[in-house]
Amino acid sequence: MDFKKILEAYQKKVDKEISAFMSKKEKEGKQISEECGEMARLLKEFAERPGKRIRPVLVVFGYKACGGENEKEILKASIAIELIHAYLLIHDDVMDKSETRRGQPAFHKEYEEIYSKKYGKGKEWNAISASVIAGDIIEAFAAQAIAETEFDSEKKSGFMTKLNEINANTGYGQLLDMELEIKKDASEENVELVHLLKTAKYTIEGPLLLGAILAGANKKQVKELSNYAIPVGKAFQMQDDILGVFGSEEKTGKPVDSDLKEGKKTHLVIKAMENGNKEEQEILLAAIGNPELTKEEFEKTKEIIKKTKALDYTKEKAKTYAQEGMKSLKKSSLNIKGREFLEGMARYILEREL
Amino acid sequence: MDFKKILEAYQKKVDKEISAFMSKKEKEGKQISEECGEMARLLKEFAERPGKRIRPVLVVFGYKACGGENEKEILKASIAIELIHAYLLIHDDVMDKSETRRGQPAFHKEYEEIYSKKYGKGKEWNAISASVIAGDIIEAFAAQAIAETEFDSEKKSGFMTKLNEINANTGYGQLLDMELEIKKDASEENVELVHLLKTAKYTIEGPLLLGAILAGANKKQVKELSNYAIPVGKAFQMQDDILGVFGSEEKTGKPVDSDLKEGKKTHLVIKAMENGNKEEQEILLAAIGNPELTKEEFEKTKEIIKKTKALDYTKEKAKTYAQEGMKSLKKSSLNIKGREFLEGMARYILEREL
Repeated sequence: MDFKKILEAYQKKVDKEISAFMSKKEKEGKQISEECGEMARLLKEFAERPGKRIRPVLVVFGYKACGGENEKEILKASIAIELIHAYLLIHDDVMDKSETRRGQPAFHKEYEEIYSKKYGKGKEWNAISASVIAGDIIEAFAAQAIAETEFDSEKKSGFMTKLNEINANTGYGQLLDMELEIKKDASEENVELVHLLKTAKYTIEGPLLLGAILAGANKKQVKELSNYAIPVGKAFQMQDDILGVFGSEEKTGKPVDSDLKEGKKTHLVIKAMENGNKEEQEILLAAIGNPELTKEEFEKTKEIIKKTKALDYTKEKAKTYAQEGMKSLKKSSLNIKGREFLEGMARYILEREL
Repeated sequence: MDFKKILEAYQKKVDKEISAFMSKKEKEGKQISEECGEMARLLKEFAERPGKRIRPVLVVFGYKACGGENEKEILKASIAIELIHAYLLIHDDVMDKSETRRGQPAFHKEYEEIYSKKYGKGKEWNAISASVIAGDIIEAFAAQAIAETEFDSEKKSGFMTKLNEINANTGYGQLLDMELEIKKDASEENVELVHLLKTAKYTIEGPLLLGAILAGANKKQVKELSNYAIPVGKAFQMQDDILGVFGSEEKTGKPVDSDLKEGKKTHLVIKAMENGNKEEQEILLAAIGNPELTKEEFEKTKEIIKKTKALDYTKEKAKTYAQEGMKSLKKSSLNIKGREFLEGMARYILEREL
């Protein structure tokens, strides 16, 4: 079976666990009060919105790669990282003032609607506040999800420690990313650091190591997973950046010009700035972080990114990283049950059409 | 030794642990990047601002009350709840748009200053975002603080589970409190529920039970601590509400009219509304939640709260609750080393001058 089919099969298993867990939370919320029940219901619906579930699925395969065999319990544990993801998405959308998420209104937009019905107009700030609180609550649920599993205390405690280390690093990555968007002079080094913290560690390495901890992995296995995860995670982010400019809204779920409008600093824009002539640099400077970017300016920017070889550079770099991860994996002692999936993921990144 | 002196002695011990822990975090942040080092430094300074440290001290005495004897380790563990408190304060100040905290600028105000120096004017929203992230980061530090102690995994895991249960409940309390401020028709039942979640559970019972978990307490001890903590916590909140209107800025650290201006729903305002005549009710309705409240209107409101016996009612209710907690404690099997402090605290609440 190929990577995408396995991913889809496990997405469904993860989705079931999310619904089961969040249904309990909804009941608990309702028992406290109507308002808390409403919050819990919205959190349940938010967590259930369709997503790739790549992080929980990686928890499962990190566990299998280190010899773990209790699929029932690892699936229950895996949702912790998806609840963390929901928490970060809710807070991110507040910070970015995003209108939509996963094809539906952003969490604070939902509360805006509810509060305007309940309390009348002008309650936007209360909706923002409710969303900060909502993120905080669903983050706390993540710890409860792991607490409910049958893993022993040592594994649970290790999992919680790792999860919070991931949280802190992701927060730092988020801070850096935001400051890079403000800065005009971001370096490639800065961009790579954000990719390390926000993608390689958060999306790939973190989930794999969470699974490894629950499998009782040894140091060698942990190192092998990291050696795979960090380069593959960077490749993953670069491909995401390419899709964020050259992909389709249909595939990425967000407007194709949103990365540029937000002023997101990527290898694409850094290299284009570096290699472009004066005129091209001026066009780029005017385009990046310009919320009023026109369709024409957007197309012009894309042309410059291609012409300056920034696109080729990024593609090549992503490929090199994915290959590095693949090579590490092939030399490793990891269990075949997890390895196959990880190989498939690296290959998928290498072959993904852009 | 009396309660206040013991509290002060332990405040100092807790302060030392906070500084030691946050110094390590500052170093770690600096190793990632300049921006992360700046964030970590601000978080350290924020955590070090003088505070009552009632929560960590209660962790220590919950532990002692259940026979715990490793003071060195319990002090290290106790700071987790103070880091959680810092996280909630940072997020609360964002939500309330507060200017100051503990006599210094609110966290987002500090970032506003920093960003305006680094990136020019107009970066208020980035400062808000940085503060949401800051809260998320220091929340993650709490788990790291407990992970670093020498308690066994079972205790650490139980502690983390409880801590996150407290977090979720406090979030719900915060949500309710905010919605009560919007509503005109809050009931005494609503107010009591907020007090239960935001004070009795978060400030008193939660910390005591965290300490109990680390002492390996039995069910009876846990129940005895709860029986003490819940009524005493409610009494504590009611006294705080009284001080929030009739106290001095010097003692409470916030303007004496801020509770009323924010529209905080307390027994004082609920009872005054209930017992007041039409004219008095109109004055109260105009005053509560009015950010433009004049000194004259404030004084008039205080008079009504007294005249309608709402002040006497609240004082009496607080006294009854504190006595209930005290009575429970006297019948309990809890260890004298922790009990003395808890008795002192209940007595302090009973005798506190208002």
